[in-house]
Amino acid sequence: MSEESIGIVLLGCGVVGGGVVKILTEQAQMLRRRAGIRFDLRHVVVRDPKKHAGQFPALPLTTNAEAAIDDPKTQIVIELLGGTTTAGTLIERALRLGKSVVTANKSLLALRGPELFALARKHDRCIAFEASCGGGIPIIDAICRGLVANRIDAIVGIVNGTCNTILTRMTRNGWSYPTALEEAQKLGFAEADPTLDVSGRDAAQKLAVLASLAFNVRLSAADTLTEGIQNLQPADIQFAHDLGYVIKLLAIAERDSEDRLALRVHPTLVRQDDVLAEVSGGFNAISIYGHALGHALFYGRGAGQMPTASAVVADLVNVAIGTTPLAFRRLKIFPDSAAPAKILPIDQLRSRYFLRVSAKDQPGVMAEITHALGQHGISLSAILQRESVDSQIVPVVITTHLAQEGAIRGALKEINALPTITSPTVCLRVIDQPKEFSVLSKSEW
Amino acid sequence: MSEESIGIVLLGCGVVGGGVVKILTEQAQMLRRRAGIRFDLRHVVVRDPKKHAGQFPALPLTTNAEAAIDDPKTQIVIELLGGTTTAGTLIERALRLGKSVVTANKSLLALRGPELFALARKHDRCIAFEASCGGGIPIIDAICRGLVANRIDAIVGIVNGTCNTILTRMTRNGWSYPTALEEAQKLGFAEADPTLDVSGRDAAQKLAVLASLAFNVRLSAADTLTEGIQNLQPADIQFAHDLGYVIKLLAIAERDSEDRLALRVHPTLVRQDDVLAEVSGGFNAISIYGHALGHALFYGRGAGQMPTASAVVADLVNVAIGTTPLAFRRLKIFPDSAAPAKILPIDQLRSRYFLRVSAKDQPGVMAEITHALGQHGISLSAILQRESVDSQIVPVVITTHLAQEGAIRGALKEINALPTITSPTVCLRVIDQPKEFSVLSKSEW
Repeated sequence: MSEESIGIVLLGCGVVGGGVVKILTEQAQMLRRRAGIRFDLRHVVVRDPKKHAGQFPALPLTTNAEAAIDDPKTQIVIELLGGTTTAGTLIERALRLGKSVVTANKSLLALRGPELFALARKHDRCIAFEASCGGGIPIIDAICRGLVANRIDAIVGIVNGTCNTILTRMTRNGWSYPTALEEAQKLGFAEADPTLDVSGRDAAQKLAVLASLAFNVRLSAADTLTEGIQNLQPADIQFAHDLGYVIKLLAIAERDSEDRLALRVHPTLVRQDDVLAEVSGGFNAISIYGHALGHALFYGRGAGQMPTASAVVADLVNVAIGTTPLAFRRLKIFPDSAAPAKILPIDQLRSRYFLRVSAKDQPGVMAEITHALGQHGISLSAILQRESVDSQIVPVVITTHLAQEGAIRGALKEINALPTITSPTVCLRVIDQPKEFSVLSKSEW
Repeated sequence: MSEESIGIVLLGCGVVGGGVVKILTEQAQMLRRRAGIRFDLRHVVVRDPKKHAGQFPALPLTTNAEAAIDDPKTQIVIELLGGTTTAGTLIERALRLGKSVVTANKSLLALRGPELFALARKHDRCIAFEASCGGGIPIIDAICRGLVANRIDAIVGIVNGTCNTILTRMTRNGWSYPTALEEAQKLGFAEADPTLDVSGRDAAQKLAVLASLAFNVRLSAADTLTEGIQNLQPADIQFAHDLGYVIKLLAIAERDSEDRLALRVHPTLVRQDDVLAEVSGGFNAISIYGHALGHALFYGRGAGQMPTASAVVADLVNVAIGTTPLAFRRLKIFPDSAAPAKILPIDQLRSRYFLRVSAKDQPGVMAEITHALGQHGISLSAILQRESVDSQIVPVVITTHLAQEGAIRGALKEINALPTITSPTVCLRVIDQPKEFSVLSKSEW
């Protein structure tokens, strides 16, 4: 068996980078046996070599990213720096020099994906990015190849492990958001500045990457309605529970019959018997609904050193043996060759809603609230009002049938302006998983 | 965009074949856009063209498989005949003529996989077989490419939709096996002769395909301990339920620290809170445990016209654009280039067990049973004995801690020989899902 040596460079050696080094070192023999390739880790680019020298005494550490990329024996560049500025510049440099790129950088792909893909194409190289979404779950490959025969109708996923970890603790322990966040930070599951994760922005970037491939469209950040978990109250988690739901941060992309996409990331009430309700802690799960496939779900660790490194090294192997470059060249599913998506105007988004109204405990309040909803054509599915403890403020929880976002926003404006309403109404969305579309007539079996 | 025309032949036009025709026809434009390929369906080989002419008036139906394959414009042959004789001969013919093959035929792959793969390699062509396991779930691709950086430690799956459908009905409706089977046959979920499915043999064939790729070994049919669902009693499903379990037909492949494999298909008690317990009806789910990835699960429709056709057409696209042939050529993971597996002797298999003993209601019986188990070093985890209704025969249900198959078999021989035992003891296995192996130290999060 002939054995090929492939020169690679690692840009960044943090948590995931360390995992990549670990797999390349400990599984070198397995990779050689499976792929016939010996990976020659020529340079590991870090800011402070002294910091890493203790952990990896044998690594070729350097601070000079340009020289590492320019090294004529460097064939593949693995970008694990994060951020969009330096990472972008170095990826461009690699592509211009005819080196393929493996990256986990969803921020960069969401921001400059089409441009970088086009650059790769111009130089007949590719960008592989399995690790950008879903950690170790091979979801990019599944969408690009495994489901290529499907017109995809919807993606519904839990794609941010930090938010899911915080929500799991809030739900199981009854913790407040600040308590759960603090605990997650202490254990290393949330960053010191958690904004990117808890705002939903990280999930929105991943959704953009997945949706652009699944629907073969070009997206921009503004296309996704994004709400985070920062304002979630334990009360809402409790009320949701009493109604038979769990609150999850979902990333949802749906195609309507006119090929318009609705893209959104927000805390969502999921039925307790839905498989997504069971996805806890750092796990991710992505449901895909295809016209032929029906419902499929991909579940696994969405982050962490070794799961993410698993995806990076898989990309490395698949770039090295040529399958990913070939797929990149042949499949016209990447956003550089796609038209901008037709986005459903946000007011026309249809969803079910969960409203928690805080009202003074006095006669006629319920009539005012339900009148406002009725005026906007919104019909109610459930109402939950408990006896008030201090008999001053009563929380009234209402779930609706399918309604338009515009109608809900109009009704809420009216409701919040009522003199009997003591604080702004909490508005969350409720998902009933998309139905399968005729895959099997006897699908109830 | 240049467009390539690829000549294809369909061998067999039953349920799945009809689905393939449907996708190729209705989604022709999407496939052209995504892959730059126009599939030219040159021949559809059927036994009785008259039977199909009504449904597919425009199809190039023929009975002459050899001529269809030999047609110089035929580039890819899709084999959906099933069976191992004719299908094998025609696949060989195609490969010898330099045509790649797409097949869903797990029986043939389990029986002659290595030989056919070697033939394909000799002629620089490939065999694609995504549809052979897990219906529309892209599980073959995930194992071959997405998880290539993992030493895989275990596969645990529900891979036979017929059995899962029957078990779901037995569990939910309290039906007997014959009633559930009859209903499944009436609705088309089970064949007139259901033996291949209900005996566990179909699942064993799929497990062989998956395990040979995951563990890079060569397997033969005798390597898998195979027990079907035909003898399952409603009583066992009920007792399992009372103990917190659901009974599923699982296909399990595990690697031990000495690289020995244990392969088995049998009815298995799965904890009610296990995600596999939720997989009902025709759905399949396959858990994979990788050293870096940890636990990942792939879920979707395991059979049916359109889900299986989704996998067949994905293979077709991936063969046509060249990625599957390239992976087949470059990755040394296929069983034709693998050594025979080291199989763990069946007596050394370790599992937990569920025993249902039918004993006469008289003093000393329990002492005899527990004595026999103790003598073989088997320790008990739970005992369930209800007050007897007719006070003649008492069912005693026992679950054990981890024990060796050999010890259980020895103990059962003794127990069944006791004069107080009225019928052979029912013995089922209990699974505690494999633990993750150090992927995250804080994996409880």
